[in-house]
Amino acid sequence: MTVHKPHLVVVGSVAIDWIITPRAERPESVGGSATFFAMAASYLSQVRLVGVVGRDFPDYAVADLKAAGVDVSGLEVVQDGLTFRWKGQYHENMNDRTTLETHLNVFEKFQPRLPAEFRGSEYLFLANIQPRLQSDVFAQMQRPRLVGLDTMNLWISIANDDLKAVLKNVDVLTLNDEEARQLSGEHNIVKAARAVRALGPRNLVIKRGEYGALLFDADGEVFSAPALPLEEVVDPTGAGDSFAGGFMGYLARPGVEPSGASLRTAMIYGSVMASFCVEGFSYDRLKGLDAATIQKRFETFASLTNFARASLT
Amino acid sequence: MTVHKPHLVVVGSVAIDWIITPRAERPESVGGSATFFAMAASYLSQVRLVGVVGRDFPDYAVADLKAAGVDVSGLEVVQDGLTFRWKGQYHENMNDRTTLETHLNVFEKFQPRLPAEFRGSEYLFLANIQPRLQSDVFAQMQRPRLVGLDTMNLWISIANDDLKAVLKNVDVLTLNDEEARQLSGEHNIVKAARAVRALGPRNLVIKRGEYGALLFDADGEVFSAPALPLEEVVDPTGAGDSFAGGFMGYLARPGVEPSGASLRTAMIYGSVMASFCVEGFSYDRLKGLDAATIQKRFETFASLTNFARASLT
Repeated sequence: MTVHKPHLVVVGSVAIDWIITPRAERPESVGGSATFFAMAASYLSQVRLVGVVGRDFPDYAVADLKAAGVDVSGLEVVQDGLTFRWKGQYHENMNDRTTLETHLNVFEKFQPRLPAEFRGSEYLFLANIQPRLQSDVFAQMQRPRLVGLDTMNLWISIANDDLKAVLKNVDVLTLNDEEARQLSGEHNIVKAARAVRALGPRNLVIKRGEYGALLFDADGEVFSAPALPLEEVVDPTGAGDSFAGGFMGYLARPGVEPSGASLRTAMIYGSVMASFCVEGFSYDRLKGLDAATIQKRFETFASLTNFARASLT
Repeated sequence: MTVHKPHLVVVGSVAIDWIITPRAERPESVGGSATFFAMAASYLSQVRLVGVVGRDFPDYAVADLKAAGVDVSGLEVVQDGLTFRWKGQYHENMNDRTTLETHLNVFEKFQPRLPAEFRGSEYLFLANIQPRLQSDVFAQMQRPRLVGLDTMNLWISIANDDLKAVLKNVDVLTLNDEEARQLSGEHNIVKAARAVRALGPRNLVIKRGEYGALLFDADGEVFSAPALPLEEVVDPTGAGDSFAGGFMGYLARPGVEPSGASLRTAMIYGSVMASFCVEGFSYDRLKGLDAATIQKRFETFASLTNFARASLT
């Protein structure tokens, strides 16, 4: 008997970043939401990547994605263009950052087209790109079982209607807390979550960086996933995308039903992959992993929140 | 057979606050670190309070403490003085606050003297007061089983040597993350925790407000306690002291050994009591509790972090 292996499509940015942290600098750091997502999810399920790069995108990065088992047949290479580039500097707290430069390059005219064999995939993640493109991609899919979406403050500001349109098709939305407040107009996080879920997404994940993440699920339950206190954060870039990769990657595994219980476990795999991501520049640390190393960190997360019940009554 | 009930002494401030929040105002709000601690701990163990008030301190507050089972024979009343008063305003996020007025009044010359029958108590919590007074109190105790201590940024700045002296006698220190950074000179929280523990306290609790709390224990293990996402925060004043009350109150229960495992459970009772505290002004919400209500919220915390194990291997 062969087990059918579902497929997970991710559409998002593929980039070359220039990262400056208080302690180090990496001028040509391969990044982008789809890249981090795919590298993280590749350990858990069958990933199909859709994106665009220019002629400057390094061959080794495509080889790394392939070696991780990612199907890159949806990665368009524009020979007369350059890859999306972002230059950013992290502050001393390694949380806040300043964007120094953004060059959209080939990303500016990106029109994602899914290869025919991608369209029947069961799982879809719409990483952070223009909401109208996210809708276009959704329309190209046949009937995905579960759709996840990420976005950012820019689209909440300048493409609010487009964003609200695509959100109607989304099962799980991931936002950070500021984005949840901006999208809902509510400061309190519980009220913000309720207002955001009323826009369509049955499940909402609120990412809080070094404070972990909250899940507000379709049954109205709340789950709090911790972040692992790390002694050395090398580069936080891609942590949220790696979280989404671990999260969706777990949900896309054979036999996993997208219920509240499996979403909780998925939150931990997301947290695990984010914790690896920040330990290196680019996807350096994500690249060399194996199932045993990932599973060991999963157990570390379990121990981090484990406590014995007691009773006063 | 009678079970011996250990006693828990708390020394700290007893105050009349004037609280302003974005949505309400309470001009005569009974507060103070020892008050919140005692009200919270009273549901879990036998609390003995040491503090000072002036002639303006309301009788009903003393009656409330007594009704909660708190031994107030160590509460000194100075008839020719006024109670410590603090006026503060919370910002829209209900996290940051501005101190508008501080009147030390009788607190300025406070010299805590423990009643003779308090001195043999098994548990001691030195709430946030001058470090030299904390040392004086410690010296008056015979041989406490477990000593907890809280402090603040002011003492780290102006009484650093005195603080470091008293820390040598402390088993559990509670700080917020900024204080841990200030005391250690380390920004990274794991490094900060290691440096703080090297000053004496075998166990360190780092309080992170709406993000919960971390325990770095004597065995080098880390535990992450969530905060309960609340829809309505009325007044955050006293949350940290209520946390400490629930935490120490659990550890001071008959039969509870102060190991890493019980410290974790204590962290949850601390989080439970903090979550009640912020639902009302002053100790309004702490006052009307019972064991069943507390236990029910303990279960809510358990469900908040509960997830099913899975394996990739």
